Amino acid sequence: MLILVVAPAGRVFAESGGADTSALDAAVEKLQTNINVVWTCVAAFLVFFMQAGFAMVEAGFTRAKNAVNILMKNLMDFSIGTIAFFLVGFGLMFGATNGLFGTTDFAIKNILGDGESWNYSFLIFQTVFAGTAATIVSGAMAGRTKFKGYLVYSVFICAFIYPIFGSWAWGSLLNGGGWLENLGFVDFAGSTVVHSIGGWLALAGAIVLGPRLGKYGPDKKSRAILGHNIPLAALGVFILWFGWFGFNPGSTTVGNGEIGRVAVTTNLAAAAGAIAAMLVSWIISKKPDASMSLNGALAGLVAITAPCYTVTPMGALAIGLIAGVIVVLSVLFIDNVLKVDDPVGAVSVHGVCGAWGTLACGLFNAEGVLGIGDNTGLFYGGGFKQLGVQLVGIAACFAWAFIIGLIMFTVIKKTIGLRASADEELKGLDIGEHGMEAYSGFQVFSTT
Amino acid sequence: MLILVVAPAGRVFAESGGADTSALDAAVEKLQTNINVVWTCVAAFLVFFMQAGFAMVEAGFTRAKNAVNILMKNLMDFSIGTIAFFLVGFGLMFGATNGLFGTTDFAIKNILGDGESWNYSFLIFQTVFAGTAATIVSGAMAGRTKFKGYLVYSVFICAFIYPIFGSWAWGSLLNGGGWLENLGFVDFAGSTVVHSIGGWLALAGAIVLGPRLGKYGPDKKSRAILGHNIPLAALGVFILWFGWFGFNPGSTTVGNGEIGRVAVTTNLAAAAGAIAAMLVSWIISKKPDASMSLNGALAGLVAITAPCYTVTPMGALAIGLIAGVIVVLSVLFIDNVLKVDDPVGAVSVHGVCGAWGTLACGLFNAEGVLGIGDNTGLFYGGGFKQLGVQLVGIAACFAWAFIIGLIMFTVIKKTIGLRASADEELKGLDIGEHGMEAYSGFQVFSTT
Amino acid sequence: MLILVVAPAGRVFAESGGADTSALDAAVEKLQTNINVVWTCVAAFLVFFMQAGFAMVEAGFTRAKNAVNILMKNLMDFSIGTIAFFLVGFGLMFGATNGLFGTTDFAIKNILGDGESWNYSFLIFQTVFAGTAATIVSGAMAGRTKFKGYLVYSVFICAFIYPIFGSWAWGSLLNGGGWLENLGFVDFAGSTVVHSIGGWLALAGAIVLGPRLGKYGPDKKSRAILGHNIPLAALGVFILWFGWFGFNPGSTTVGNGEIGRVAVTTNLAAAAGAIAAMLVSWIISKKPDASMSLNGALAGLVAITAPCYTVTPMGALAIGLIAGVIVVLSVLFIDNVLKVDDPVGAVSVHGVCGAWGTLACGLFNAEGVLGIGDNTGLFYGGGFKQLGVQLVGIAACFAWAFIIGLIMFTVIKKTIGLRASADEELKGLDIGEHGMEAYSGFQVFSTT
Repeated sequence: MLILVVAPAGRVFAESGGADTSALDAAVEKLQTNINVVWTCVAAFLVFFMQAGFAMVEAGFTRAKNAVNILMKNLMDFSIGTIAFFLVGFGLMFGATNGLFGTTDFAIKNILGDGESWNYSFLIFQTVFAGTAATIVSGAMAGRTKFKGYLVYSVFICAFIYPIFGSWAWGSLLNGGGWLENLGFVDFAGSTVVHSIGGWLALAGAIVLGPRLGKYGPDKKSRAILGHNIPLAALGVFILWFGWFGFNPGSTTVGNGEIGRVAVTTNLAAAAGAIAAMLVSWIISKKPDASMSLNGALAGLVAITAPCYTVTPMGALAIGLIAGVIVVLSVLFIDNVLKVDDPVGAVSVHGVCGAWGTLACGLFNAEGVLGIGDNTGLFYGGGFKQLGVQLVGIAACFAWAFIIGLIMFTVIKKTIGLRASADEELKGLDIGEHGMEAYSGFQVFSTT
Repeated sequence: MLILVVAPAGRVFAESGGADTSALDAAVEKLQTNINVVWTCVAAFLVFFMQAGFAMVEAGFTRAKNAVNILMKNLMDFSIGTIAFFLVGFGLMFGATNGLFGTTDFAIKNILGDGESWNYSFLIFQTVFAGTAATIVSGAMAGRTKFKGYLVYSVFICAFIYPIFGSWAWGSLLNGGGWLENLGFVDFAGSTVVHSIGGWLALAGAIVLGPRLGKYGPDKKSRAILGHNIPLAALGVFILWFGWFGFNPGSTTVGNGEIGRVAVTTNLAAAAGAIAAMLVSWIISKKPDASMSLNGALAGLVAITAPCYTVTPMGALAIGLIAGVIVVLSVLFIDNVLKVDDPVGAVSVHGVCGAWGTLACGLFNAEGVLGIGDNTGLFYGGGFKQLGVQLVGIAACFAWAFIIGLIMFTVIKKTIGLRASADEELKGLDIGEHGMEAYSGFQVFSTT
Repeated sequence: MLILVVAPAGRVFAESGGADTSALDAAVEKLQTNINVVWTCVAAFLVFFMQAGFAMVEAGFTRAKNAVNILMKNLMDFSIGTIAFFLVGFGLMFGATNGLFGTTDFAIKNILGDGESWNYSFLIFQTVFAGTAATIVSGAMAGRTKFKGYLVYSVFICAFIYPIFGSWAWGSLLNGGGWLENLGFVDFAGSTVVHSIGGWLALAGAIVLGPRLGKYGPDKKSRAILGHNIPLAALGVFILWFGWFGFNPGSTTVGNGEIGRVAVTTNLAAAAGAIAAMLVSWIISKKPDASMSLNGALAGLVAITAPCYTVTPMGALAIGLIAGVIVVLSVLFIDNVLKVDDPVGAVSVHGVCGAWGTLACGLFNAEGVLGIGDNTGLFYGGGFKQLGVQLVGIAACFAWAFIIGLIMFTVIKKTIGLRASADEELKGLDIGEHGMEAYSGFQVFSTT
């Protein structure tokens, strides 16, 4: 992510120097800042809308009897996350650092020290990113998680877990910290910082929770528990794809031609991911699977998130295609080999493909950040050194999120409780936790 | 609302004065106008999309047998409203005034007198605002209103009721009228001008109509009539939240850093409203209620609409929290004490919380419109005088919309008819009014 | 469509000439280009989101047993189309021409020859346009088309059919070709180039396929096959309307006041189309039909797409009203007289109303492209010569798309197969083609 407290209009127009051009320079700087504000805020709103996408994907891919519950979790993790990030997280991520995390700028008493109005645009953009990381987890824990336990988790991820890692990878331009960024770690829009953090927390949560009742039979074999509303899930994927045009191109936070370039790489990777996942599912199960294809688009989007700024369109195609293959294999592996019950495939989409995308930065990047003049070759990377740095970042993310996740969810389990009762789970969390049904008036058969 | 017929680029760049800088000034003015156009139009499109949000919320929170009807009403009130506002309403609201309303600029023969292209951007932005006021009413009148009667209402609100009040509160910069604005009334983006107008008309409509059959038993006790599709309703709330980023920040109509600041206050109030409503419903009904939580987010959004430009983030949090409490209590009060049947809670969300947000301008505003340098305190208001002016505006809105509403709906009732026949209502308005079902092929049980 | 490889900021600010203002000119040029990029990319994202709208409309207006299939087709035609247009189509449409089509700029090795970053914004905008043309067809062929055959079609339209016609109508500014454009053919945002191309391909596909089983009884009379989810379809229409604010105003590709003007004409035509279709359906079938009203809004949008830049608001109203009448009559004619089974009315909405809108350019256009100072009259057109040119374009589009479509679908039919087996069709394509149901847990009755 480019982090620009004051947008770099001056640099963009470096040719207009000299003493008597200072009025021009000042005007250009202000106008470019205003362009940046409009762009960054619109991008932030698109990223906000991804909350609707996650809600529809997660509700659609799970059962009708838990739909209200998953929607409430999506609404509440963003609401709680907004306030937790405002009060605590933003300061930890971007405040003046103690070396490990920021220690100022909580509740933006004096945001980033200068009070310039750009800071609020930066805050809203960062808030919706934190909300994205938070909401990934709900899908993997769908169908058996206590609502109260989930609310507590939401506070922790947006107040502490996400922003502290974020300060390592994205904080250095502002506060001099950011040990990962100082190593040369590249994650432009957050394959690791946002998606893998969410994915590995989701893995920890799904493990601590255990599988849904009936998911693994006495023979330990995985049994499919079908989603109840594929049109909603498909709508969710389209909304997420739409929102990703804010997520990736928006991470430039500058209104200039790079927006189009990042939009092109983002779109190609999504398309390639959908196609690849469809083909792999077709080979494996003899039919083109809709759930896999939809997840393939998301896999391509997650994977291109880190390298979207530094690869050619052909590189984006390759990254998306590989992500589409990976996500299908990963879903099957986690379900059938690890026997971890992840109802919507969140760990595979966000954790695994986030790692793949981050690694791809080391494989497909041009040597210089913008060295994309020649796009005939796929592989013209930063060499093995860059690959190594990317692996360090991937490993740090896994260690941080998975270990903290295991601890946090275990503590929640032992104190206020993490898992709904078996009775609630069978009748559905909607009745048990919220006293209502998602589809009043329709006859819905429980499929478990 | 800031109303800028010609965007104030010149003022923004006041430092670049002097005779030989006139070319620079002109260039800056044009570029800033273009930035304003892009921003204002994008914001208008987001506000348009709120029509989808209202349609999904209202359809989801009501019964399946009336879903087609409510969707048609949402489609048609915007369509009719677009044309009525273009032909009549815009001129009444922003034309040269006779002291009470505008009398020029109908059908934009010569919009606002100068033909500058900015005017069309202003028109589309104002059109979608009028459409928002119009569509609020359908939810409160759901399940028993004749389609033809509703169409007639749609003409009146967008041609007369909304724009005349709007001219009082927002028209003065353009036409010298605007008695409320001249008093010092503050309603930045329309808590009162848009939402309360819609809410009080909804109240009048619900009263004139009477409750749905079976809503209040022989014992006069309220009986819950459950919404048929909570995922749709939740989607609608996410869409509305998304669209509100056009509604509030867009009301600056200027592309600069204030957009980010208004987006931050808007988002915090929505989040706080959702959380507060969830907690209050949890205390009252022992379970966190999804409908209340979703309405809580909307309540926070409605309440922050007036003060979004003039409060600190901490003030926005407080306004949203209080709105979340108010909306739950108001829904219960209107349903159980007033015995007015408002199927989706439109009166509470838009009328009551619109009034609260408008009042909050007097409580939480900085002394100067932009005096938000210090955000340590919540209350540093414009004093009791400002509070008084706000109360005048709130009362004027209620009197205008509620009384006109009672008259209009009564006249419709006595002439072309307002209420569907009991037979139509029982079988569902979809069959009765439109000859079709919303969910062909599904078995849907009527819950009344 | 205005095609601006380098955005014309210099022309916009022509007054700031002179030798010593070159720094100012350069700064203005760069800033205006950045504004254009932000606007064009945001518009492109809105157009992308129309994919969700098409998916919801097509799924909602058809039966539940085929919902997964239609969603997969929507996902896949855009995914395949993205890559086909990137690799082949863009070069055919905008590359250096051989007189009939472009022959350079494939896979943007050296996009448009200059590598300026604007080109990527132009590419993403053009990609989502190609995707729109592609996805129109799926609705007309819903319920009986083999998935594999549909995938092959997707490659052809985005790689060849759409871009070659596009080069005739929109390519000349870039490559000197564009025989239609050189004739004076006007189609600002694609009533013909995008919508009619899709509509006439849809007609060819529906003819080659034949009707769904049971659609026409032994008496040859048409039987209504009802859509299964009107709320989804209505959501889809709202999404399409929203996205059209990117489609039409975005086709300026310049961030200035024209955006607002085009948004106004677009919105008025949509509103008028919905109202007119409702009224016509009310007259014909005694009840205001929701499907017709929703299609009426789309008809207005398709019709205004060509003339949106060159008509007054009053002209837009007239064009939309007529489109709303045409679409109802066309749907009835195609269904009852031609006996072509078009489940969602795609041929009428996109083909027929696209032709109407293109013709309307000759009827309603001001003499000069921007001669809209006087808006008292509806008809002040470019005379019969312009009408003639418009008819040439309409006829060329029909001939090109319909004939190529007949050939292509027939070849697909004879080789890999175009129509699903009767057994698959009866049980639903979801089970037959994808091995899953859209609504697991719900009891859905097949209506055929």
